[in-house]
Amino acid sequence: VRRKNLRVQDFVQGVLAQDRTVLGRAITLVESNVPAHMERAQRMLKELIPHTGNSVRVGITGVPGAGKSTFIEALGSLLCDRGHKVAVLAVDPSSSLTRGSILGDKTRMQNLSRNKNAFIRPSPSSGVLGGVTRKSRETMLICEAAGFDVILVETVGVGQSETEVRSMVDFFLLVLIAGAGDELQGMKKGIMELADAILINKADGDNKQRAEMARSEFERIIHYLLPATEGWTTQALTASSLTGDKIPDVWQTVEDFKANTMASGVFQRRRNAQTVRWVHSMVDDYLRTAFYGNPTVKAMIPGIESDVVEGNLSPTQAVQKLVQEYENHRKANS
Amino acid sequence: VRRKNLRVQDFVQGVLAQDRTVLGRAITLVESNVPAHMERAQRMLKELIPHTGNSVRVGITGVPGAGKSTFIEALGSLLCDRGHKVAVLAVDPSSSLTRGSILGDKTRMQNLSRNKNAFIRPSPSSGVLGGVTRKSRETMLICEAAGFDVILVETVGVGQSETEVRSMVDFFLLVLIAGAGDELQGMKKGIMELADAILINKADGDNKQRAEMARSEFERIIHYLLPATEGWTTQALTASSLTGDKIPDVWQTVEDFKANTMASGVFQRRRNAQTVRWVHSMVDDYLRTAFYGNPTVKAMIPGIESDVVEGNLSPTQAVQKLVQEYENHRKANS
Repeated sequence: VRRKNLRVQDFVQGVLAQDRTVLGRAITLVESNVPAHMERAQRMLKELIPHTGNSVRVGITGVPGAGKSTFIEALGSLLCDRGHKVAVLAVDPSSSLTRGSILGDKTRMQNLSRNKNAFIRPSPSSGVLGGVTRKSRETMLICEAAGFDVILVETVGVGQSETEVRSMVDFFLLVLIAGAGDELQGMKKGIMELADAILINKADGDNKQRAEMARSEFERIIHYLLPATEGWTTQALTASSLTGDKIPDVWQTVEDFKANTMASGVFQRRRNAQTVRWVHSMVDDYLRTAFYGNPTVKAMIPGIESDVVEGNLSPTQAVQKLVQEYENHRKANS
Repeated sequence: VRRKNLRVQDFVQGVLAQDRTVLGRAITLVESNVPAHMERAQRMLKELIPHTGNSVRVGITGVPGAGKSTFIEALGSLLCDRGHKVAVLAVDPSSSLTRGSILGDKTRMQNLSRNKNAFIRPSPSSGVLGGVTRKSRETMLICEAAGFDVILVETVGVGQSETEVRSMVDFFLLVLIAGAGDELQGMKKGIMELADAILINKADGDNKQRAEMARSEFERIIHYLLPATEGWTTQALTASSLTGDKIPDVWQTVEDFKANTMASGVFQRRRNAQTVRWVHSMVDDYLRTAFYGNPTVKAMIPGIESDVVEGNLSPTQAVQKLVQEYENHRKANS
């Protein structure tokens, strides 16, 4: 199939046949912002959706320096050895600014990237988080259609990215290292209550005992927090991505979680709710973009905001003014 | 002034003259959903806004049974005795269903409700949370214009109410009681990271030691969480609303907080940001209500949601369909 001639059916067949080249191009298609590409991407997705869902989706976040990518390399390699097909994706809203702060450099996962059962895809580079997560969700679906049964979604603790990733995965893992109680510095508020497990990484050598102490401390804290998943007690674990020690235990936790939530129905209920919420959040994005991108609104916003802050306008009046001008502008242009 | 003839100027003058009857009617005006009332309410607010802001705004939430209203009675009475003018408001999104589960019954705060320096106002009864918080924010402003320099906003742990109250106050207090680690059961995720102080109430009699132990436990946990306010370390306190023990210390914490954040500029920056965010969240409410209240959209939603869940439609296609029908319907009706 020549590059220019790939039709929707070629994409669908290629992905279902687990053709790596076509898979990569299919993801590039959903990442494109060109309207004609977007239209084709959606027709392709419609065909692929019946073949999706047969995977466990694991979100992985953590503080910088916690060794997320070493961990993903260790876990991913283990799973590939066991015959799983592992797709590693990234959601990094900052990547357009930092030129790919995570997963941009595949050399960070040298072994995994060479494994024929693994597929590593860096974060799409749209600067808009809503756009990044839409693309990551669709990429996840395409990977599932291509037979990947483990999806690892790595994210950094920037802005809303953890919440967004939590809303697209089954299981959410927070990777930390032993420290002086400052483990969560710079992380999003409430991050612990998003996690189904907290992993203290780098539990090796001199650090092993400190990691174990941090683990018990987090176990105490978890006790005071709300569980992220109905019927599942958040776990506190240690492991070493360097030596591979207890990496199998981390995966066992994911397996236990899957068995537990599938039996209770929570697994499927959450996936359905995630899908519906995804639709609603895309609607919200559309509405907000239409409003705040409207030239009249755009021009008014700075003045309105300072009028409100300075007390020259009540907040409700500010909204009335903005909405009125917005509606007038739309009517005049429809 | 006869009831029917109260004009905007009468409201403004009455509120500024600290006339209780007019104050009550001014709040009723902003609570009204009648368009003519809303228009007058906004004209009144515009006049009052220059007289607002001279207060400390304290949000108070807690688990059922933690003794929130006894605490507010104890704290409010202390502050009135010290010459403060104290307004107690409530944000209770469930009140339209439960007919006022909080503050509906003023007898719960018998002493405070008789105090001439206190003003107690139950939650407005609109069932829509956005509506309830708009009204509560405007009520807060009116109370400030009427000379109240302490605003206590009570809320229950339902849905988004804590987040909403956090976004309208300077200081946020979480009231708990000593328990077996289940203190936060049923509270919103991340609630501890919204709080500037956690108060273990009912630290009296046999319970005193347990309360003190719970306090130290929370102090440890706080260490692992992000502070709610830049430059302020979340405090863990005990007090007894029954005996009044350490209630002054709770207020001292609020005073310290105010001094600290005013000196750093965080106090005013947060208030400005809250005002701007309030405008944006009202815009979001407007946009969502227009969209999901649109008859075409309303009729389509159930079918679209099940199509998406069943895999007959991709989420992005679902959004495209909804948006297209919405825009067509608007054009046809403009």
